[in-house]
Amino acid sequence: MGHAVFQPVETFHRHPDTYRHWKLSVDGAVATLTLSVDENGGLRASDYELKQNSYDLGVDMELADAVERVRFEHPAVNTVVVTSDYPKVFCAGANIKMLASSTHAFKVNFCRYTNETRCGLEDATENSGIRFIAALNGTAAGGGYELALACKEIYLIDDGSSVVSLPEVPLLGVLPGTGGLTRLVDKRMVRRDVADLFCTKAEGFRARDAVKYTLVDASFPRSKWDDRIAAVAAESAERPRRGEVGIELPPITSEVSEDGLTRTYRHVEVVLSPEDRVATITVCAPEAAAPTSAESLHAEGANTWSFRAFRELDNALLQLRFNHAELGLIVLHTQGDADAVLAHDAALEALDSDWLASEIRLFQARTLRRVDNTARSLFAVVDEGSCFAGSLFELVIAADRSFMLEDEDGEVTVRVTSASGGLFPMSTGITRLQARFLRDPSQVDRALATGNALDAPVAFDLGLVTLAPDDIDWEDEIRIAVEERVSLSPDALTGMEQNLRFVGAENCDSKIFGRLSAWQNWIFQRPNAVGAEGALTLYGHPTRPRFDWDRT
Amino acid sequence: MGHAVFQPVETFHRHPDTYRHWKLSVDGAVATLTLSVDENGGLRASDYELKQNSYDLGVDMELADAVERVRFEHPAVNTVVVTSDYPKVFCAGANIKMLASSTHAFKVNFCRYTNETRCGLEDATENSGIRFIAALNGTAAGGGYELALACKEIYLIDDGSSVVSLPEVPLLGVLPGTGGLTRLVDKRMVRRDVADLFCTKAEGFRARDAVKYTLVDASFPRSKWDDRIAAVAAESAERPRRGEVGIELPPITSEVSEDGLTRTYRHVEVVLSPEDRVATITVCAPEAAAPTSAESLHAEGANTWSFRAFRELDNALLQLRFNHAELGLIVLHTQGDADAVLAHDAALEALDSDWLASEIRLFQARTLRRVDNTARSLFAVVDEGSCFAGSLFELVIAADRSFMLEDEDGEVTVRVTSASGGLFPMSTGITRLQARFLRDPSQVDRALATGNALDAPVAFDLGLVTLAPDDIDWEDEIRIAVEERVSLSPDALTGMEQNLRFVGAENCDSKIFGRLSAWQNWIFQRPNAVGAEGALTLYGHPTRPRFDWDRT
Repeated sequence: MGHAVFQPVETFHRHPDTYRHWKLSVDGAVATLTLSVDENGGLRASDYELKQNSYDLGVDMELADAVERVRFEHPAVNTVVVTSDYPKVFCAGANIKMLASSTHAFKVNFCRYTNETRCGLEDATENSGIRFIAALNGTAAGGGYELALACKEIYLIDDGSSVVSLPEVPLLGVLPGTGGLTRLVDKRMVRRDVADLFCTKAEGFRARDAVKYTLVDASFPRSKWDDRIAAVAAESAERPRRGEVGIELPPITSEVSEDGLTRTYRHVEVVLSPEDRVATITVCAPEAAAPTSAESLHAEGANTWSFRAFRELDNALLQLRFNHAELGLIVLHTQGDADAVLAHDAALEALDSDWLASEIRLFQARTLRRVDNTARSLFAVVDEGSCFAGSLFELVIAADRSFMLEDEDGEVTVRVTSASGGLFPMSTGITRLQARFLRDPSQVDRALATGNALDAPVAFDLGLVTLAPDDIDWEDEIRIAVEERVSLSPDALTGMEQNLRFVGAENCDSKIFGRLSAWQNWIFQRPNAVGAEGALTLYGHPTRPRFDWDRT
Repeated sequence: MGHAVFQPVETFHRHPDTYRHWKLSVDGAVATLTLSVDENGGLRASDYELKQNSYDLGVDMELADAVERVRFEHPAVNTVVVTSDYPKVFCAGANIKMLASSTHAFKVNFCRYTNETRCGLEDATENSGIRFIAALNGTAAGGGYELALACKEIYLIDDGSSVVSLPEVPLLGVLPGTGGLTRLVDKRMVRRDVADLFCTKAEGFRARDAVKYTLVDASFPRSKWDDRIAAVAAESAERPRRGEVGIELPPITSEVSEDGLTRTYRHVEVVLSPEDRVATITVCAPEAAAPTSAESLHAEGANTWSFRAFRELDNALLQLRFNHAELGLIVLHTQGDADAVLAHDAALEALDSDWLASEIRLFQARTLRRVDNTARSLFAVVDEGSCFAGSLFELVIAADRSFMLEDEDGEVTVRVTSASGGLFPMSTGITRLQARFLRDPSQVDRALATGNALDAPVAFDLGLVTLAPDDIDWEDEIRIAVEERVSLSPDALTGMEQNLRFVGAENCDSKIFGRLSAWQNWIFQRPNAVGAEGALTLYGHPTRPRFDWDRT
């Protein structure tokens, strides 16, 4: 099918000073995020032009960055107006030529990332009180309307021409894959037959019908647009602010070894073993003392371990996803003083009323959800010198399997704290312990009641680790498990892990990742979309697509 | 990939007297269903042999038939022991050569059907008190163990060699697609890391580990096997029986017109329009009076309209699914006296304590879920002479869209009754009205409170129909909608409809159809499974599969 080769993503770092596609401005409690895409600024600029405020991964990385900066650098902001400075166009969604010229794996990873960013908007609304207001001053098509759907409120200009639309099914033969279908019926609760009309109508609905069908919250004529949006924002801005003075988010730095196989951050190390198709991530415990007051936490800012280590872990996951698709297994290690981890956890807990402490814990929660949503097998290895305690214990129960060394002295331990009791919900809304012990919820309480360091036999008996080999079996057992795992079909593993990880309750988020994405992935493979005569391939060409009409 | 052409399914009729693969015996309250597959009795016998008690669609049609016969012909049965008479093998699951030589569309439809059959076992347990007991007297691999998972209790023989296993991921590069992953973690609530171990271990677990890991409920040694299973069955049989004397389930008969385009049942007519890629199903109202007593209902038996019409509708859906994949749109019509429909509904309601009345309504509910789960666009057309009332009104709100004629005289009406208030839950567990009015549940109450015949403007205002064109626009509006619908990508429509139909709550069933199946469909398209060097293709060959290792 002649896909363009996707260049590995060089950096995930973005900064408002050098954004090419978004503008972030802050005025008191109101920030404005203005989409203003540089047509020639795509990540693979030779393959496509970003016309009509359409986006690629680079555009979305700026959006993700902007949301994080509002959370950390602008705690006074409680309202973000999302709009465009294009005439008549808010956003045309993901760039079609970019999609059509991408590999299947890239399309899937791109959608996963953009979904996480949109869930991040909702997380900011729900947990930090930052209300996103989509001010659609022009047409919001496809991913443009999906971005609006991730906002708390949606307003559409009533100018006789601007519409909201999801034209993916009729025009491209694929789904609105960034949560659109799910948010339409499960978040906005648009009636399903109305949603059916809307999703098959390429030209979309103008303001009057969009309001009638509950696709937007209200519309305003052009003459009143600026005033009314300002009034909506001003009213939202009257709500409490989280804080006043933010902290700076410096770039995440790392060094790569000469052979390219080891990436070293301050607290995280990633070692690639291409011949084994394994990546090992080691998260190190803090060496510095925990902050003792809000002042010291704010002074440390992005350098405080709880934040920096998780930002580095987050970055490491993105690196592996986009740049090392062939590594099918991530082995999770930790190293250092468990007491130091717990001291940093406790410091954040003690500062619970401080906005920064709260934001850091929310960031940790998002990073752990990024772990859950990473389509790689995850093994946690608890061995000598490890520190799977408190917040880092979540890595053990995020893993598909865990191995814990039963050493003679019982010095290898894990520690379960209140951090596993609700601070870090999965995308399903339940905790990892609850998902683990669905059969017997009393085991959740039992685990949370332990408090002290648990050696391998105890942790095994409590059901907290999968396997607890002794010294003699340890190396062989892990080696064989790793070899077996990486020998299996990567697709079957992805499907299996998606179905085993997200047990129990479902919500909008988990439906988006677990169900909608799976259907989209299927369609992204089908000749009717991506074949030589498929709708996605032929979009923009004079030739009409030819379908195999059989329904499956 | 050289798929064998799948022969259309000639008949869905099966009868215990002529089963080739199952034996059904009844002794008081206990029935025994014994799997005894005729290796040479596959539906495409020249393509594969059904070794090791493996199954194809024909084997599963017998199972589906047996479950219905237990419900209707043997109301005294409250316990069904599911076992095998092969030595050392309970069931090896779906036949791999059959899968490998089937088209993608057939694989997907086959899995949908087998899933519905397994959900039917659970429905019989939950709603009719028929407890299925999986007596695994030999190895239950893949679909064999999935069948056991659909039973209420699972027992495994402890003979040193028999195992339960889900070897699909390690051996075939596909998922256990008949609900296995979901039932493992969401029904039996097996710990997810234990499930991970189990699903990647091709050789499975013998009795001791299977009990320890909660994969089965208990195990018994061979010396005590028969006695212990008999004791389990006897204890279960002590529960109440539904009734004593059953009714006969005659074959569903229909006549096909000379041109092959019209299939006429007693109450249902199906007209195929291959050039438009549309099928029209018309369900006719009863002509006979409703039964007035339990005696008259039992005397009518399978001929009573409420049962016969829905059996015919069910059959029509299966015909369309397996034999007419290219017809992308089903138009749902009704015809006749709405009062007659309501009279038959009311008769069943009045006989609520009668087992047969109850079983018929449960059958109607399953048929309506079969409608929901049919991967075709569904339009309901409410026009002159139609009778979308009571149980048939569910077809209007099962449809993706509905069109209701606004006639001058207001004679075209729909009627919402208590039938829409909980008798016919979707696979999500909520009613179609609740799914429709998720945004404003008071609309559910308002619709249920109407009772009388509602003309188009009223029905439209209540949100019960999608569109209500008048005489002048009627024909054009439907014609254009139909033409547009069948012009769209069939895959995108399947994905879209799956995501829009099943809003709100989720449960095990909806996870199986909405999530697990989507992942399986994706994997069934991937070269790692079905390519020339894919695992499914090469299963049983000496050559090892070659994978594209990139994770998506």
